[in-house]
Amino acid sequence: MKHLVLLRHGQSQWNLENRFTGWADVPLTEKGEAEARYAGVLLKEKGYDFGIAHTSYLRRAIKTLWLTLEEMNQMFIPVQPTWRLNEKHYGTLQGLNKAETAAKYGDEQVKQWRRGFGIAPPSLDSSDERHPIHDAKYRKIDPSLLPSTESLSETIQRIMPYWEAEIYPSLQNHKHVLVTAHGNSLRGIVMHLKNLSHDQVLELNIPTAVPYIFEFDDNLNLLNDYFLIDQAELQRRQQEVAAQGKSKA
Amino acid sequence: MKHLVLLRHGQSQWNLENRFTGWADVPLTEKGEAEARYAGVLLKEKGYDFGIAHTSYLRRAIKTLWLTLEEMNQMFIPVQPTWRLNEKHYGTLQGLNKAETAAKYGDEQVKQWRRGFGIAPPSLDSSDERHPIHDAKYRKIDPSLLPSTESLSETIQRIMPYWEAEIYPSLQNHKHVLVTAHGNSLRGIVMHLKNLSHDQVLELNIPTAVPYIFEFDDNLNLLNDYFLIDQAELQRRQQEVAAQGKSKA
Repeated sequence: MKHLVLLRHGQSQWNLENRFTGWADVPLTEKGEAEARYAGVLLKEKGYDFGIAHTSYLRRAIKTLWLTLEEMNQMFIPVQPTWRLNEKHYGTLQGLNKAETAAKYGDEQVKQWRRGFGIAPPSLDSSDERHPIHDAKYRKIDPSLLPSTESLSETIQRIMPYWEAEIYPSLQNHKHVLVTAHGNSLRGIVMHLKNLSHDQVLELNIPTAVPYIFEFDDNLNLLNDYFLIDQAELQRRQQEVAAQGKSKA
Repeated sequence: MKHLVLLRHGQSQWNLENRFTGWADVPLTEKGEAEARYAGVLLKEKGYDFGIAHTSYLRRAIKTLWLTLEEMNQMFIPVQPTWRLNEKHYGTLQGLNKAETAAKYGDEQVKQWRRGFGIAPPSLDSSDERHPIHDAKYRKIDPSLLPSTESLSETIQRIMPYWEAEIYPSLQNHKHVLVTAHGNSLRGIVMHLKNLSHDQVLELNIPTAVPYIFEFDDNLNLLNDYFLIDQAELQRRQQEVAAQGKSKA
């Protein structure tokens, strides 16, 4: 049997401040760091033994990975970061407070921007310093690939080539593979693995720093998927994520 | 021009306790973590922009790498750990206090064990729990390759295949390459790059967490090498390393 473990980063500074983050490269909070270490404790208890880890270019995902691996005493595995696992790009919303944005534009518009499958927030101008073409991290990436905003559909489209070329082959080569990334980039992977409809993916809420396990047979047929957490705690966390975009939250 | 940066890990718990460490997987001290961050500050000041990092399987080297990259805001580069960059294996000396060992066997014997080119400390029995065949980290490595002790010569012999297959090609592909490792594994690389004699490598002392820069032209001819530190501070640090094996220290 083979296991793919998806792990959303722990609380970041802008999760705490309830701001749209996207590609903004904000650090974890202390709570987020503790969450990441706890994910490591859970995975160590279950005897996970990762052959490789994939992560995004964003420090909140990378730090989550490092803290998890440190807790597991598996710091020595190869770590492969990619911009393709970055969070959905939120365009001009990046940096804005979610509740304020919801009060201004309405809950429904914000829900669409956050979760509408084909709907992208307003686009960043290429002169805007928040545009990824101005960030040294991405200077080796073809600028025409770098987004100025993204719908969830577009996020998933840029993740899939990396899934096909790197994550899926690494599951062929290793028993346990770890991916630390973001709410929306992980939803893209889950959508693919579980053949979710657009509506189903819109309702899928992945809690922070809870290992999400996918079990495969040796031919990589999906057998089962579950969170490493009890059901009540899981529901509480999912509601927390769903509530972030509401103006009353 | 291309730059290879060699970085010896910061102070570890057993550096502090003056014990032979070798493949024992001890953590950095707080001082060691601060040293690693400072290496990151120096490298960031000079504008280093690493394409890839190589490190050993030992947490003191990996943590040094992580702290350096975090300070530089370059956490997103690929990190390739290998057992071949591990410290020299110190056989049955691993865990023993250096000053006590020197008092018992004499400074000269300890100097030979630490630094004699072809001389290995007494070998660990395969039943000894300190033997790498009992460590989960190495379970994917052919057990016949795993050492029970090593001379410096043997350490260098197991590093060179990795140099040829991975580090050297990565210098062809990237402008700046970072290697974080250990006193003796780095001495092997320096010996190769500078064509040092056995006697010269015996006298080479690499201070902890001071970036050691090798400049190459685009055809990878070595042009220059230097430490990112001023001369007086460098001498003080080198004497500190040389004094560790003396019984009076």
